[in-house]
Amino acid sequence: MTVTSALVVGTGLIGTSVGLALRAAGWTVHLVDVDPARAALAADMGAGAAGIPDSPVDVALVAAPPRHTAAALAQAIGGGLAGTYTDVASVKEQVLTDLRELGGDITRYVGGHPVAGRERTGPAGASHDLFTGRPWVLTPLPDQRADDVAVVRALVVACGASPVVMTVEEHDRALAAVSHLPQLVASALAAGLLDADPQAVPIAGQGLRDMVRIAASDPELWADIAAANADPLAAGLQGLIDRLAQVQQRLAAGDPATVQEAVRRLLIAGNEGQARLPGKHGGASRDFATVAVVVSDQPGQLARLLVDAGDCGVNVEDLRVEHTPGRPTGVIELFVEPGVADTLRTALRERGWSAH
Amino acid sequence: MTVTSALVVGTGLIGTSVGLALRAAGWTVHLVDVDPARAALAADMGAGAAGIPDSPVDVALVAAPPRHTAAALAQAIGGGLAGTYTDVASVKEQVLTDLRELGGDITRYVGGHPVAGRERTGPAGASHDLFTGRPWVLTPLPDQRADDVAVVRALVVACGASPVVMTVEEHDRALAAVSHLPQLVASALAAGLLDADPQAVPIAGQGLRDMVRIAASDPELWADIAAANADPLAAGLQGLIDRLAQVQQRLAAGDPATVQEAVRRLLIAGNEGQARLPGKHGGASRDFATVAVVVSDQPGQLARLLVDAGDCGVNVEDLRVEHTPGRPTGVIELFVEPGVADTLRTALRERGWSAH
Repeated sequence: MTVTSALVVGTGLIGTSVGLALRAAGWTVHLVDVDPARAALAADMGAGAAGIPDSPVDVALVAAPPRHTAAALAQAIGGGLAGTYTDVASVKEQVLTDLRELGGDITRYVGGHPVAGRERTGPAGASHDLFTGRPWVLTPLPDQRADDVAVVRALVVACGASPVVMTVEEHDRALAAVSHLPQLVASALAAGLLDADPQAVPIAGQGLRDMVRIAASDPELWADIAAANADPLAAGLQGLIDRLAQVQQRLAAGDPATVQEAVRRLLIAGNEGQARLPGKHGGASRDFATVAVVVSDQPGQLARLLVDAGDCGVNVEDLRVEHTPGRPTGVIELFVEPGVADTLRTALRERGWSAH
Repeated sequence: MTVTSALVVGTGLIGTSVGLALRAAGWTVHLVDVDPARAALAADMGAGAAGIPDSPVDVALVAAPPRHTAAALAQAIGGGLAGTYTDVASVKEQVLTDLRELGGDITRYVGGHPVAGRERTGPAGASHDLFTGRPWVLTPLPDQRADDVAVVRALVVACGASPVVMTVEEHDRALAAVSHLPQLVASALAAGLLDADPQAVPIAGQGLRDMVRIAASDPELWADIAAANADPLAAGLQGLIDRLAQVQQRLAAGDPATVQEAVRRLLIAGNEGQARLPGKHGGASRDFATVAVVVSDQPGQLARLLVDAGDCGVNVEDLRVEHTPGRPTGVIELFVEPGVADTLRTALRERGWSAH
């Protein structure tokens, strides 16, 4: 079976990334979005051609927000736009329930969920390797045609992801544990910063930053996800609350030895839990070397720095701007291939930059 | 006042990093550790000379674990090893209490805490730029000699950090909020993975990974820190538990609309709290408009783009590079004042850029 054409419905972060990945694998890709400007941007980024295909494609992938997924699937199925249909919604039971309510023909639909993403939305953040080495869960129904599963599996593999088959229930319970619960915790932790002393927040370190990164996520999206996966999420959240409450009670009682014992036990369990996570994936940017440049906070500094870096013939792969609160200087970190970091550092110093 | 010599007591991650930073700033640095092999490694790394100085140095910095900090300070003070004394313990009240119990002379001691670090320990992880652009809290007592504060401030500045003055109480409360509480939450979340379905853990994404990264931290260290800062930590933890319990009760009740409302509210508060954090892409959190530009991945593209943007008279407030390793194109997002986004978009298009 050759599967080489797809329709992506919804060109946000995930849909556009799928388009980019499939195009890189040589597929023909069509892109539609309720907002034509987003489909145009995705097309310009190389994710495919904007517009409905003239004839049915092999597979249609709906990458709409969860609450619109079933309707978009029903519409695509009703239009006969593809041979097989899939989606990317992060809760699978609800999509099936909605599809059945809409009376859609679900025999050619195979639920899917790429477990990849970012805290941001929209096509601009898309990347052809968003799924590389990541799991992509498929939730075929017990009576599903093997051909349809194979078609969606081909799409997943073309995106560089690893297909993982689960039941709908298994998927939703697993996601509550590794995605939905962490999201609520990140949001609650970040929300707590609103009550913190104003002078406390500026001294936050990388640990807290990393923990609340996903707190920047979309409220509407997560309201939908939580409501659609309430039971497993309620259970997981209760477990976490119990674990925290045990330590809180010791802290409030104030006996140092008892606090130490409780915190030590929590940390040891945390060490073990953390170690269960599989190795890092897709950390390409972490393989770059860093050149840190202390700059004054004036317009044009960044441009001049990059011009000077370009003059050295060094390609800056990525950069990070660290503003220092209340200070006229900041640090710009330039990420470059490890072999050229020393060259760049020396060259920038010769040009008067404070490069480290 | 010229301050150019230091003794570092305790050559772990922090002490060695201080040595490296001070050496880079031209200081004379002496290094001691209860484990001479660690001091030797730190010396080999270029952090200073192993051994007690022959004559008193300007400042002695104790970078021992919190529970040993007061004793190490008392010993250094008793030996008259320096003119001024400081430390790096992440809880300040406890160090003072311990020092007073030990009967040490605290008149020349200025408490300090570099808010920087990593989940790893030991000199090998040390870096001369660990403190670059980071806050370093100083907690002088009300009757502290200005000279001693100035000496420690000089050390902080030589390390590239930004001195922030707080009272002891303010420091401990702030750290509970931005460091100690997040640590317990990361550990509790990671500990929960021990109870998760075996098939759930392998599909964990970057969000969870980032959230539990610091769960790899040292149990003994954190047992000490929590016990030494029990009151603010108990209060902060209770606040978080309350926040999570509110959502948990809605989830358990199972009415979708009520769940959505509670989760939406939590996420919105989390969005706001997260945006208060300084640093990485802080500008993006403000109300800037975004202009997305699709670029080819060649040296100098970013610089040329910024030069062109500057030629339009538009000040680029911040930018984000979406770099895709192995692909010939990327997206650069320029953050500008909302009023000029359209102007910039048009001007860039006229200059041949694919701007959206």
